Amino acid sequence: MGTSDRTDVAAELPVAGLDALMRRAFDLACRGPKRGVNPQVGCVLTDATGTVIAEGWHRGAGTPHAEVDALSQLDTVPPGATAIVTLEPCNHTGRTGPCAQALLDAGISRVVYSVSDPGLISGGGAARLAHAGVAVFPNLLEDEGETLLGDWLPAARLGRPVVTAKWAQTLDGRTAAADGSSQWITGPAARADVHRRRSTADAIAVGTGTLIADNPALTARDDTGALLPEQPIPVVFGTRPIPADARLHEHPHSPIVLSGADLAADLANLAQRGIRSLFVEGGPTLISSLVAAGLVDSYLLYLAPALLGGPRTALGDIGVASIGDIRRLEIESVQTLGDDLLVIAHPKGNENSCSPE
Amino acid sequence: MGTSDRTDVAAELPVAGLDALMRRAFDLACRGPKRGVNPQVGCVLTDATGTVIAEGWHRGAGTPHAEVDALSQLDTVPPGATAIVTLEPCNHTGRTGPCAQALLDAGISRVVYSVSDPGLISGGGAARLAHAGVAVFPNLLEDEGETLLGDWLPAARLGRPVVTAKWAQTLDGRTAAADGSSQWITGPAARADVHRRRSTADAIAVGTGTLIADNPALTARDDTGALLPEQPIPVVFGTRPIPADARLHEHPHSPIVLSGADLAADLANLAQRGIRSLFVEGGPTLISSLVAAGLVDSYLLYLAPALLGGPRTALGDIGVASIGDIRRLEIESVQTLGDDLLVIAHPKGNENSCSPE
Repeated sequence: MGTSDRTDVAAELPVAGLDALMRRAFDLACRGPKRGVNPQVGCVLTDATGTVIAEGWHRGAGTPHAEVDALSQLDTVPPGATAIVTLEPCNHTGRTGPCAQALLDAGISRVVYSVSDPGLISGGGAARLAHAGVAVFPNLLEDEGETLLGDWLPAARLGRPVVTAKWAQTLDGRTAAADGSSQWITGPAARADVHRRRSTADAIAVGTGTLIADNPALTARDDTGALLPEQPIPVVFGTRPIPADARLHEHPHSPIVLSGADLAADLANLAQRGIRSLFVEGGPTLISSLVAAGLVDSYLLYLAPALLGGPRTALGDIGVASIGDIRRLEIESVQTLGDDLLVIAHPKGNENSCSPE
Repeated sequence: MGTSDRTDVAAELPVAGLDALMRRAFDLACRGPKRGVNPQVGCVLTDATGTVIAEGWHRGAGTPHAEVDALSQLDTVPPGATAIVTLEPCNHTGRTGPCAQALLDAGISRVVYSVSDPGLISGGGAARLAHAGVAVFPNLLEDEGETLLGDWLPAARLGRPVVTAKWAQTLDGRTAAADGSSQWITGPAARADVHRRRSTADAIAVGTGTLIADNPALTARDDTGALLPEQPIPVVFGTRPIPADARLHEHPHSPIVLSGADLAADLANLAQRGIRSLFVEGGPTLISSLVAAGLVDSYLLYLAPALLGGPRTALGDIGVASIGDIRRLEIESVQTLGDDLLVIAHPKGNENSCSPE
């Protein structure tokens, strides 16, 4: 069945009406939890005239998907019904059955969705529906749908959390003086910015070297030192034992400890735990390994207008032998934070791209 | 004699008239050479009514100073004459006699000047004149007078050239890949900017390590590779011999070679040769030594949005053992040049300040 056929059938509902119904589905999606393995998804069911007959949304892993939640509101689905869903119905039996099959079983005639499911396992729902004769109208208000999904979407595409590498350095690339002292290289505005961004990440990572040397709390705090409402889950990479008196033990979340021997596998492990975004704060060994492995999606460089010289560089060996292997970045923004600069950048090109394919 | 007395007497000439006469003296000053040991200086002589009776300017080392040049236009100086000079008359017998004495000998009644002479040897002219009963009106249009003097003034205050340290690095502070390859870290816009700035410096310096490793031309060139009209004098620091086939030998100016064993003394040596501004392009050893010695006045950091990691840092040891010794800078500007950033900064505080005392 060609795209134009599907579009023609779906166009029996007025387009303006479809937009409004999809935005209603977006609103429903937002009622679900923002974090976790599963995305926020909303679903509106209409009868053949476009009148809403049921609504549903996903309440988190282990609970019914949005389509099934909406279908459960109805004893019977009238002929010619349309499902408007924010994400392509899944084709996967996990803790719940595949939504594509549920829609087929219910006799839904048309499916309109916003964002295609990027999952290797869960994808293919649209094809199953179309193959069974359902009129499928994909990618309505796709940009809005992608925004709604936040980090879930790139994390699903990558099969791992979106990784942000953050460090504070002097202009000459040092994170500490020769004796290891580093408090403080950047000023209060930069440090407050770090805490705000930490609180938006699902998890925060350090290597055991940094954990032992700096004894970081790995919490997101306000100017008074009080915990912000949302705290990232602490993740520690490495095999050295965590000291008994580590401040990490006071963190509201229990830490996840990973060996770091296979970073790609470790990150996939985190994704399976529902961690969509990882904020990596150091030290040089962990960050350099992630850079070398091409596993950093975004860089937050806090640059203090200062020089330190000496041996304590922010990055060590990142696997660049010759200038041809230089890791080019694309600068997204440069902003002033007090006396400091914040440079936000991404790997150049598509190798780690989080943008739509 | 108090300041108010001097001002009252000088005020016999209308202030508006004085401003115009000083600006005429600035124009005369600009007829002299822009480079060399001596500054550009202009002088206007008026009779007691404020009518211009002679003008003079300095044409370069070994020729008469502006005051003497103006006096030489007159057979006799009428009583009540005023000298309007862009720089405090000198009090020093060098290749020419002290101008303060020449003005006294000529019977000048009033001296109005813009910028005080910062020289430890040449200064004191105003005091000599005032002591002899001449009405002295200092620091008229001082800002304009300082601008006119350019790098001569801070160089005279420092007793050495104004030193600009320039390097191009990746965001992580590297100037080359592990194998030493570095062409190119920054893009064409950044490189063109370097050439423009080189051409405004009196001299350009590298260490012998960089000279041997990179074989730089040390010329200022345009996009086609052609030499710009003004070329900095090449200066080489170090004791390793300059290779016979070095491109340096094709430079329009003969190089100055200094041992680098005592950088402060080397810079004083350059100042005595009339070099007011030195553009230091590397390598890490030379720049780190200058930073450690507190001899850098200005930093030009071209930051490429890229990462290299590895051993080739822009700076080595700059004598910072602990965070308390961090070298803080003040950022003057951050600008975009193609894909790159240019950060211009100065040492924070007054230790190396070139601003008026």
